[in-house]
Amino acid sequence: MNDFDSPDFDSTEHQTRLKELYADFEAAGMTPLWLTREGLMPFYPQPRAVPHLWRWADLLPLAARSAELVPVGRGGERRAISLGNPGLTGDPYTTPTLWAAIQYLAPREDAPEHRHTQSAFRFVLEGEGVWTVVDGDPVAMRRGDLLLTPGWAFHGHQNVSDTPMAWLDGLDIPLVAEFGPAQVRNRQTPDRSASERLWGQPGLTPVALAGTRPASPLVAYRWAHTDAALAAQLELAAEGLPGVLEPGHAAVRYTNPTSGGDALTTMRTEFHRLAAGAVTRRSRTSASSVWQVFDGTGSVRLNDEEHSLERGDVVAVPAWTEFSLTAVGQLDLFTFSDAPVFEKLNLLRTEIS
Amino acid sequence: MNDFDSPDFDSTEHQTRLKELYADFEAAGMTPLWLTREGLMPFYPQPRAVPHLWRWADLLPLAARSAELVPVGRGGERRAISLGNPGLTGDPYTTPTLWAAIQYLAPREDAPEHRHTQSAFRFVLEGEGVWTVVDGDPVAMRRGDLLLTPGWAFHGHQNVSDTPMAWLDGLDIPLVAEFGPAQVRNRQTPDRSASERLWGQPGLTPVALAGTRPASPLVAYRWAHTDAALAAQLELAAEGLPGVLEPGHAAVRYTNPTSGGDALTTMRTEFHRLAAGAVTRRSRTSASSVWQVFDGTGSVRLNDEEHSLERGDVVAVPAWTEFSLTAVGQLDLFTFSDAPVFEKLNLLRTEIS
Amino acid sequence: MNDFDSPDFDSTEHQTRLKELYADFEAAGMTPLWLTREGLMPFYPQPRAVPHLWRWADLLPLAARSAELVPVGRGGERRAISLGNPGLTGDPYTTPTLWAAIQYLAPREDAPEHRHTQSAFRFVLEGEGVWTVVDGDPVAMRRGDLLLTPGWAFHGHQNVSDTPMAWLDGLDIPLVAEFGPAQVRNRQTPDRSASERLWGQPGLTPVALAGTRPASPLVAYRWAHTDAALAAQLELAAEGLPGVLEPGHAAVRYTNPTSGGDALTTMRTEFHRLAAGAVTRRSRTSASSVWQVFDGTGSVRLNDEEHSLERGDVVAVPAWTEFSLTAVGQLDLFTFSDAPVFEKLNLLRTEIS
Amino acid sequence: MNDFDSPDFDSTEHQTRLKELYADFEAAGMTPLWLTREGLMPFYPQPRAVPHLWRWADLLPLAARSAELVPVGRGGERRAISLGNPGLTGDPYTTPTLWAAIQYLAPREDAPEHRHTQSAFRFVLEGEGVWTVVDGDPVAMRRGDLLLTPGWAFHGHQNVSDTPMAWLDGLDIPLVAEFGPAQVRNRQTPDRSASERLWGQPGLTPVALAGTRPASPLVAYRWAHTDAALAAQLELAAEGLPGVLEPGHAAVRYTNPTSGGDALTTMRTEFHRLAAGAVTRRSRTSASSVWQVFDGTGSVRLNDEEHSLERGDVVAVPAWTEFSLTAVGQLDLFTFSDAPVFEKLNLLRTEIS
Repeated sequence: MNDFDSPDFDSTEHQTRLKELYADFEAAGMTPLWLTREGLMPFYPQPRAVPHLWRWADLLPLAARSAELVPVGRGGERRAISLGNPGLTGDPYTTPTLWAAIQYLAPREDAPEHRHTQSAFRFVLEGEGVWTVVDGDPVAMRRGDLLLTPGWAFHGHQNVSDTPMAWLDGLDIPLVAEFGPAQVRNRQTPDRSASERLWGQPGLTPVALAGTRPASPLVAYRWAHTDAALAAQLELAAEGLPGVLEPGHAAVRYTNPTSGGDALTTMRTEFHRLAAGAVTRRSRTSASSVWQVFDGTGSVRLNDEEHSLERGDVVAVPAWTEFSLTAVGQLDLFTFSDAPVFEKLNLLRTEIS
Repeated sequence: MNDFDSPDFDSTEHQTRLKELYADFEAAGMTPLWLTREGLMPFYPQPRAVPHLWRWADLLPLAARSAELVPVGRGGERRAISLGNPGLTGDPYTTPTLWAAIQYLAPREDAPEHRHTQSAFRFVLEGEGVWTVVDGDPVAMRRGDLLLTPGWAFHGHQNVSDTPMAWLDGLDIPLVAEFGPAQVRNRQTPDRSASERLWGQPGLTPVALAGTRPASPLVAYRWAHTDAALAAQLELAAEGLPGVLEPGHAAVRYTNPTSGGDALTTMRTEFHRLAAGAVTRRSRTSASSVWQVFDGTGSVRLNDEEHSLERGDVVAVPAWTEFSLTAVGQLDLFTFSDAPVFEKLNLLRTEIS
Repeated sequence: MNDFDSPDFDSTEHQTRLKELYADFEAAGMTPLWLTREGLMPFYPQPRAVPHLWRWADLLPLAARSAELVPVGRGGERRAISLGNPGLTGDPYTTPTLWAAIQYLAPREDAPEHRHTQSAFRFVLEGEGVWTVVDGDPVAMRRGDLLLTPGWAFHGHQNVSDTPMAWLDGLDIPLVAEFGPAQVRNRQTPDRSASERLWGQPGLTPVALAGTRPASPLVAYRWAHTDAALAAQLELAAEGLPGVLEPGHAAVRYTNPTSGGDALTTMRTEFHRLAAGAVTRRSRTSASSVWQVFDGTGSVRLNDEEHSLERGDVVAVPAWTEFSLTAVGQLDLFTFSDAPVFEKLNLLRTEIS
Repeated sequence: MNDFDSPDFDSTEHQTRLKELYADFEAAGMTPLWLTREGLMPFYPQPRAVPHLWRWADLLPLAARSAELVPVGRGGERRAISLGNPGLTGDPYTTPTLWAAIQYLAPREDAPEHRHTQSAFRFVLEGEGVWTVVDGDPVAMRRGDLLLTPGWAFHGHQNVSDTPMAWLDGLDIPLVAEFGPAQVRNRQTPDRSASERLWGQPGLTPVALAGTRPASPLVAYRWAHTDAALAAQLELAAEGLPGVLEPGHAAVRYTNPTSGGDALTTMRTEFHRLAAGAVTRRSRTSASSVWQVFDGTGSVRLNDEEHSLERGDVVAVPAWTEFSLTAVGQLDLFTFSDAPVFEKLNLLRTEIS
């Protein structure tokens, strides 16, 4: 019971005093909750980012044009063109916490070494002939591979082939960067990186290197393994055994063999396969995600809008967007999200309708 | 070595084509890294938030004036006035992830029940006579106490006294809220809450409730305990025993008895005491923090600026701000930060000079 | 289907060859599973230890007599008399993994310092006037207190009073020990130990000492806190609030404030209070435990046998013993068990009938 | 200072009274620490188990003879012959916590299904043609493979070939067992088990099955992977890169892909390879282990004794045994130990000389 004397809220005097108070608040750097409450404590998550789709048919030619006009090198560092969410005016981010870009390396071109506190990965939509050198370890890049660059690891790229190559780059929130050598230091082009030779056998850990690490020491996840794991899930389902996420929907998560957790600390990376005709449940979650079509055709539903999907298309799915996929033929997609951050803070909420 | 043909970068034609490319990028929602790199990968953390100090002498009268003009109730919900960082134009946040406000309850006034996904706390600078009711448990609020409201717990406040009361409110990043009853449901005013009776004995856990929980089930940390713990650290130091953070600088962290970790999942809360004349090491960290002077006088150094400190003053310390405290007499401060988030993501970096 | 040719098992020749085989097995240090299977893979846990009860009325006079005849000192080290389970012939253990003893210190007597890898505790049934010095920190011992000696901490005891004192000692499995000074090094007799001054405020952690530790840095759990916590649980139950383990049965676990887990790594320590007339559910578990009556009267059921209980009586409860307590008046008991070991190995099973 | 009146220890009366006291102790089930201290708190770990070596040349013929004389079937359940440590009189254990046995299955023979709370594994020294069926999943067994049977999983074996097969079985401490069907239920003989199809791709986790589990869901670790990982470590060392445990000594640990920890909860399983001529550092540890020579020749030093090693030989290494290996040619060994138990209890100590 509030039993103090109520002011006459409609009086001119009251309005005048309120105006003065609000002016004084502003001068003092103070904002009354009762004027901002809706934004501060919304009744459901209301991200500024909006659902959005970029067509590979648009992205790739623009990247190719930039290769003709802009060299890679000190200063620019990378020929990476980020996919900026239309709702995040001014920021080049794809969602508030995720940065996705298309990176393009011309034939025989180098990207110099640098490092940054962000975790990064590259997912290869097509091509081969590029080696990314991670802390001195040359890692081959080929269609379907996921390659990791853990935070603060020096890395550069070299294209040893006569064809250009483009891939999807992902980064988490920015902190600090540092330049390294202008050229990549280890120009070997081995089939398997040292990282894979040490960590690439299933369930086997070098005793000398045992112990949990925040990010995965395995820095390359090869397409042949991903493809086989997805195929096995669908086959096991046909045999009546568990493994798929839902009928017709296989999915693997790229994980850190030292912990079983996500391969990167702050981003979840997964590959999903829908059998022809499959439709996923509609869901929404407090995490935001980015999806890229690796192969096949289908469509995506983002809240109430349905968009067709072609190979290479990229989709931004902000928090609490209702999301569903439909496969026409078999549909293969790579995805990354900020779910690990929400999970570690006990804030991951998912609603399936 | 990049051996493809370099374009003539200075030619008019090149400039024209570049302009067209950039226009096409913009139309496609793409941003070249080479134009944004500095912001995306800075050489040191560059928060938009700025160091700032609010004077209690300004805050309290403004809060009192608002009590005369604006009632508490449905719609406004709380008479809380947030301290908006001058660098975060338009946002009412004190740092990018922390929200601090002064909340003011007039004599015999109620603040209705609601709940939200954010974790919240109240730290009491002065006064008594208010009970905050957390999920039906009435918790007394008195000078020096820290009171928690874990995420999604219904809570309301009632002032049963004839004097107004003001305190510091802290919240983490916004997600979702929900209204509860318009009035507080449990109007008892016990000396000790049920939470303290169950969890308030040092090192003793009810067997029926054993098991780790994300947030602390102990929702009140009383000043008498805080004061005793700080005094003991300084006394032990005088006896040559460990305990203080550095000479003349005692500090306790409010922790969750079921895990030993921070009392709240996303915010670190601590109380620091400097002996008269003590000066803390200069440090900076990737987390951001807010400090309030509980008692005493001294000064704070924020990068190259020194500000005097009086009882009640509030200081915003954004990430990577060089920070140091100096005590004239004994100086007592409450502080909260987003350090647990950075710690869980392996991104907490601290530099001590 | 085993389709190899079956031998004629009953033939004399077969019996002779079997006998030779078994002799050869024995010579080679081999034991066929088919002769031992029952013991190796029993259908339910079959500990060699048996349920047993020792009367305080027997224990205390014997301990007192030994004080007249046997000095404490180098060699013997402690006037501790262990309660050896009758089923564990030759071993002085109370259950296969727990060692309980009555320790007795005459007026003005010292027990010299030593240390061992075992974790140890002392629970005080009666008396006061003894200080146990743990790594140089003098810790007062009084009726109802639980005092910890983490593994490898030097510790000695001194009785500064004119009366003898006896208490219950508990240890886990033996590893390694080392002698320390023949006398206790810190002969101060403070009311509160340094450990309690640093760690004894509920939910407050010295920032300088933050971080999880295997064993509790709080080495004394005082009776006043234990008593208050138990009383609160029963009062809250009367108010309709949760907290008790079952109707009329309050229980607290002694925990490590840095982790929320058990105060000691390998032993669980708890205090239970039954309201007058209360009967606990019958249960059995894969862990074994020892109980001591602190106050009150009642009875204990061990499988099919019921034993009356008096103050000070000690009960050994081996794994899978059906166990239940009945209180005549209010019944207070201290207990310790090896449950943390089973829990950490995912082997703790409990059955409640 | 112990200032009570010392008795005359040498008097006849004292001796008489002592004798009476000790008799009364015994009657009361009490054992004075001063008479047992040496055993209870030794100055270094003193296991009853002794270092021991079994020759494969002895084990295999005895196992084969038992196949002629004793059928597999209900009652015996398994033709497994355990290696009982000579120091553990009466117990069929290889060390106090580990049980190793040679198991032998004749051509076309079945071992019926059962389950037990113990974790178990099989390591295959030679042969193929047997499938072990783990919870209905048929898992091929071939030379060099490690196959897991997590606790409480039903399992049976079938030999579909015309040759006998023998392997090493390992178990941890006994708890409880249960019979299953007398014959194996799934008589398929797939090349890859369902477990491997779901979990056998490096770093890839089925999203539908994500989450930490105590024991590995991957139940087969194939020799080709183990061999490749060991070869890579030695090759990387030759290239100056890290990976080996010490010069000339490669080692992998079998791990649980959901946690990165040991494949089984209570036993550590590893495979070690010594390059020709390599000698390992002498070490001893509080855990005990069992080793089997997979291939090659060399020798083992157990405290002060050196034993030659041939293919198939089994070595028991009790706690605190000084241990070192020497390779003549390349030496490959499988090993298992109880190190995870000691690690989880913070009791693992290792000393390297």
